[in-house]
Amino acid sequence: MKADFVNPFLESVVNVLSTMASMTVTAGTPSLKTDDVAKGDVTGLIGMTGQQTKGSFAITFTERAIFNIASKMLGDHPTEVDESVTDLVGEITNMATGGAKALFEQKGYDFDMAIPTVVAGKNHCIVHKSSGPKLILPFSTDAGEFFVEICFEP
Amino acid sequence: MKADFVNPFLESVVNVLSTMASMTVTAGTPSLKTDDVAKGDVTGLIGMTGQQTKGSFAITFTERAIFNIASKMLGDHPTEVDESVTDLVGEITNMATGGAKALFEQKGYDFDMAIPTVVAGKNHCIVHKSSGPKLILPFSTDAGEFFVEICFEP
Repeated sequence: MKADFVNPFLESVVNVLSTMASMTVTAGTPSLKTDDVAKGDVTGLIGMTGQQTKGSFAITFTERAIFNIASKMLGDHPTEVDESVTDLVGEITNMATGGAKALFEQKGYDFDMAIPTVVAGKNHCIVHKSSGPKLILPFSTDAGEFFVEICFEP
Repeated sequence: MKADFVNPFLESVVNVLSTMASMTVTAGTPSLKTDDVAKGDVTGLIGMTGQQTKGSFAITFTERAIFNIASKMLGDHPTEVDESVTDLVGEITNMATGGAKALFEQKGYDFDMAIPTVVAGKNHCIVHKSSGPKLILPFSTDAGEFFVEICFEP
């Protein structure tokens, strides 16, 4: 997968979180997902289909990270993963992929997006099933780390 | 959501499991998902986009149910959710939605499918985020129950 293809996701995720949650978000170095499984407590997932390729996008947060983001974005102080938290994760998933889609359009890639799904549960892990490479993009914030996983067909 | 829209999923899921795992699969009555959350240990998820509507499909199994299905389909006797189990769930997700897509084509609906993602982790739950109704389709087998969730924009 070319940097060309990863950058719109990186840029959009940093943009959404830094703008909406007024936090400093630093993108780490993307790596291929092998045995190393990013485990989250809440994950937003969305499928993307286009003429050139299709795949899926996941963004996974620990409770600590998403509670902190919720307090900054909504002024809430959630102590459990309730509907406001899953709504927020769905919204972040929509905004991050919507922003990436706009950046992809400038490069001539065109995507349709499905409806986001949010998975809640302690320490679940996400396994992408395709022939394409699975990439993990780590992000760090004051509130802890979170991870984006992307997997698109070659 | 019309029965017209639900039936291809029902039919395809029963078809895949009864053919591939040689098990008797009975579809229960679909219901609207409200507070009642189907919790699984392994879930296959896939986004579907089309001209007329877009949405997502999830199929969620308890460990007991999927281990039993794995033994019937693969001759394996898994005791944990390993790669063979998540592969199987990804494959069932692909086959079930692929079969439904073919049935939808006969009705004039056209879908592109994203890449399936599998979620593993004890007792996670799935929350669809869209304006459309969230429908739960229960299925029972000798190996226990499993659930399909579909959510499509009106």
